[in-house]
Amino acid sequence: MTQSFHPPVRTLMGPGPSDVNPRILEALSRPTIGHLDPAFVGLMNDVKRLLQFAFQTRSALTMPVSAPGSAGMEACFVNLISPGDKVIVAQNGVFGGRMKENVERCGGKAVMVQDGWGMPVDPQKVEDALNTHPDAIALAFVHAETSTGARSDAAALCQLAQAHEALSIVDCVTSLGGIEVDVDGWGADAVYSGTQKCLSCVPGISPITFSERAQETIRKRSHRVQSWFLDMELVMAYWGENTQRAYHHTAPVNSIYALHEALIVLEEEGLENAWARHQANHLALAAGLEALGLELIVPRHSRLPQLNSVTVPDGVNEAVVRRQLLDEFSLEIGAGLGPLAGKVWRIGLMGYASSHKNVLFCLGALEAALNRSGGVAEARAVYSSL
Amino acid sequence: MTQSFHPPVRTLMGPGPSDVNPRILEALSRPTIGHLDPAFVGLMNDVKRLLQFAFQTRSALTMPVSAPGSAGMEACFVNLISPGDKVIVAQNGVFGGRMKENVERCGGKAVMVQDGWGMPVDPQKVEDALNTHPDAIALAFVHAETSTGARSDAAALCQLAQAHEALSIVDCVTSLGGIEVDVDGWGADAVYSGTQKCLSCVPGISPITFSERAQETIRKRSHRVQSWFLDMELVMAYWGENTQRAYHHTAPVNSIYALHEALIVLEEEGLENAWARHQANHLALAAGLEALGLELIVPRHSRLPQLNSVTVPDGVNEAVVRRQLLDEFSLEIGAGLGPLAGKVWRIGLMGYASSHKNVLFCLGALEAALNRSGGVAEARAVYSSL
Repeated sequence: MTQSFHPPVRTLMGPGPSDVNPRILEALSRPTIGHLDPAFVGLMNDVKRLLQFAFQTRSALTMPVSAPGSAGMEACFVNLISPGDKVIVAQNGVFGGRMKENVERCGGKAVMVQDGWGMPVDPQKVEDALNTHPDAIALAFVHAETSTGARSDAAALCQLAQAHEALSIVDCVTSLGGIEVDVDGWGADAVYSGTQKCLSCVPGISPITFSERAQETIRKRSHRVQSWFLDMELVMAYWGENTQRAYHHTAPVNSIYALHEALIVLEEEGLENAWARHQANHLALAAGLEALGLELIVPRHSRLPQLNSVTVPDGVNEAVVRRQLLDEFSLEIGAGLGPLAGKVWRIGLMGYASSHKNVLFCLGALEAALNRSGGVAEARAVYSSL
Repeated sequence: MTQSFHPPVRTLMGPGPSDVNPRILEALSRPTIGHLDPAFVGLMNDVKRLLQFAFQTRSALTMPVSAPGSAGMEACFVNLISPGDKVIVAQNGVFGGRMKENVERCGGKAVMVQDGWGMPVDPQKVEDALNTHPDAIALAFVHAETSTGARSDAAALCQLAQAHEALSIVDCVTSLGGIEVDVDGWGADAVYSGTQKCLSCVPGISPITFSERAQETIRKRSHRVQSWFLDMELVMAYWGENTQRAYHHTAPVNSIYALHEALIVLEEEGLENAWARHQANHLALAAGLEALGLELIVPRHSRLPQLNSVTVPDGVNEAVVRRQLLDEFSLEIGAGLGPLAGKVWRIGLMGYASSHKNVLFCLGALEAALNRSGGVAEARAVYSSL
C-alpha cells in the first residue's frame, strides 16, 4: 500500500510557490461546499471585490481563473486575439517568449521587441515598434519578469499602447501584492496574475481582469474563442455581475477559500504597507548579498524586491549549492532559466516569505554553503564539530 | 475589513463536488513545497502509478491536468483533433454537447449521434454513423452522464471505434472510482476524469490518460496544439517518464497532495469493493425512493449507482424542495440541467458520500420535505412542536 505523503517543511525563497501563510492553509482545508451553494455565491462576490482592491480596478470582469497563471495568460490571449491579428510582444525573459507562443497559437502574428535578460523593457523600442506596425492590435509585456527579477514600467508601456490604440496585455504574476499594480491608473486592458507568489496562497489559481475596452473587443469577436474552458463569455455566466451563477465548470471551491483568505491578509496589511515591507526586506537582502561579495544582475532602479537574481561566483557549482541549502537548511532558492541557467540563483522574498527572519536565515545559509568566513559560517562549524 | 469565510457544513449529495473525506482535507493543508522539489518529484511518481491503478491502464501518459474536468476534456480534444478532422460525438446529456463545442473550437467537424436524456448511448446508432462516415478520426462519448445518471457501454463503444480505426475519447468524470473504468481493457484512447466526484477529493484537477495510439497521433500532428497550457508534448517534459521534470507551469502542489491521498483511500478499499459499495447504496436508495413513490428516470440496467435522477412529482416545486433540504438539513442535492431543468432532482452517492448513513438521511429529509407520512416525517413534526 502507498504511504500518505508528509512533505518536508521548507522555507520557500525561490521564484514561487512562496511560503503559504498557515492561516491560508487552514482556510484551504475547510469543508467543501457546492459551487452553486448560496454561501459560495456570497464568497464569490467577496473574492471579486477583493481582487478589484488588489488590482486597483473597478472592472466588473475581474475574477479568478480556475487554473495556474499560465492559463490566466492564455485566457487573456484567446479572448482578445483572433487569427491574423498582429501583436507587439516585448520580451526580456522567459515569459515574453510564452506570450509569443500564445499569440501564434491564436493564429496571430507576434512582432518581438527584445531586451536583455535582466533588463527592463525599453519603452523607446516599444514605441518604435508601435510606429512601425500601426496595425498591431495589442502590446503584451511582463511587468515583473520572474525569470530575471526585472521590473518594467507598466504605466509608461500601457500609455504607449493607448496612444497607438492598441490593447495592453500585462503579466502581473509576480508583481501583484509585492509592488504597485495599478490596473485602472495604468489603463491596462488585460492583466493576469498568480496566487503562489506575493499573495502567498497555494498555486493553482490565476486572478485576471479585463478593462471595458477589452470587454468590448470580446463582445465584438467574430471568430469563436478557441478554448471552451477559458471563453470569458461563458465563464461570466458563472462569475459575472447580476447573473444566475449558471453552471460553467466546477469551481475549485477550496482553492477559492484559500484565495479569499490570502486577499483578506493583504487587505488587513494594506497595499502600501505590503509594498513597503517587500522593499525594506529586499534592501536588507541586497545589502547582505553585497557584503558576501555577491552581485544582483538587474540594475538597481529596475530591481523587483520580491525576486532577486544573484550571479553565481566563478568556480561555484550553482546546483550543488542549491542542493546543499535544500538538504541542510530545508531552504529552497531558484535556479536560472534559459540563458541564465547555471549562471544565477533566484532568491524570492514573496508575500509571507518576505520577512526579516528569512532575510537573515537565507544570508546565513548561503554564507555557510559558500564556505565563507563570518559569524554564521563559524557558528555552523562549531555546531558540526560538537 | 472582510471576514474570513467559514463554510456551512453540508452533506453533498448532488452531482459533485461530493463530500470530501476529512483525511483528504487534512492532506490538502500540509505545508506547500516547490513543484521541482525532489520530494515532490517522488510524489508525482506515486500519483502517476495510482492513477494508472484507478484507470486500469499501463499507459505512461497518465497524469493530472492542473485544472477541472472541463480542462481535462479540452486537453483530450486539442491534442488529438486538428482543423478539418471529423469526429462522431454521441450525445445523451449535457456533456456530449460540450464535446461538440470542443470539436468545433479545434476546427473539426462534429457528427452528432443523439439519444434521449436519461438513455444510454445506443451502440447501433454509433456503428451506423461510423459506417456512414468512414473518414471520422474519432468517436467521443460520455461513460457516465452526470446530467442524467445514465451509464453507457464503454467497452462496446470503444470496440466499435477500434473496428473503424477511429480513436475513442471517453468522459469518465463521474465514473472513475464509482463503477468499473477499464481503460486498457476497453482499448480507450483518451480518457479524462475529475477529482470531485467518486474520488471524493476537492474540485480542480482532472486526471487524464492517453493510449499508445493516441500518443502516436499527438507525435504526428502537423498543426500545432492550439493551447499552450494543455499541449501534452510540453506538459510531458514535466510529468513524463525519465525526464528532468522541466518547468512547464507551476503545479497545484496542495491539490496534488489531496489527489494522492484520495487515490490511497481508493487503493486501500480496492476498486471492486468501492464499486460494490456504490452499487449497494444505490440499490438501497432506489428502493427507498420507490417506497416514497418517486421514480428514477434512467432504465434499471443503465443506472449509474453514483448519480440518481429522480422525477419531481406533479405539483411539487423542485427548487423549493431543494432549498428546504439545504436550509433545514444542510443537505445538497442537484437540480436538472437543460431539458430536465425543473423536472428532476439529481441525488449523488459519490465516493465518501456513498454510505448507509447518507442513504437513510437523504430519504428521511426528502420524505420530510415532501410532507409525506412516515416515521421520519412524524418524528420531525414532533420535534418542531416541542
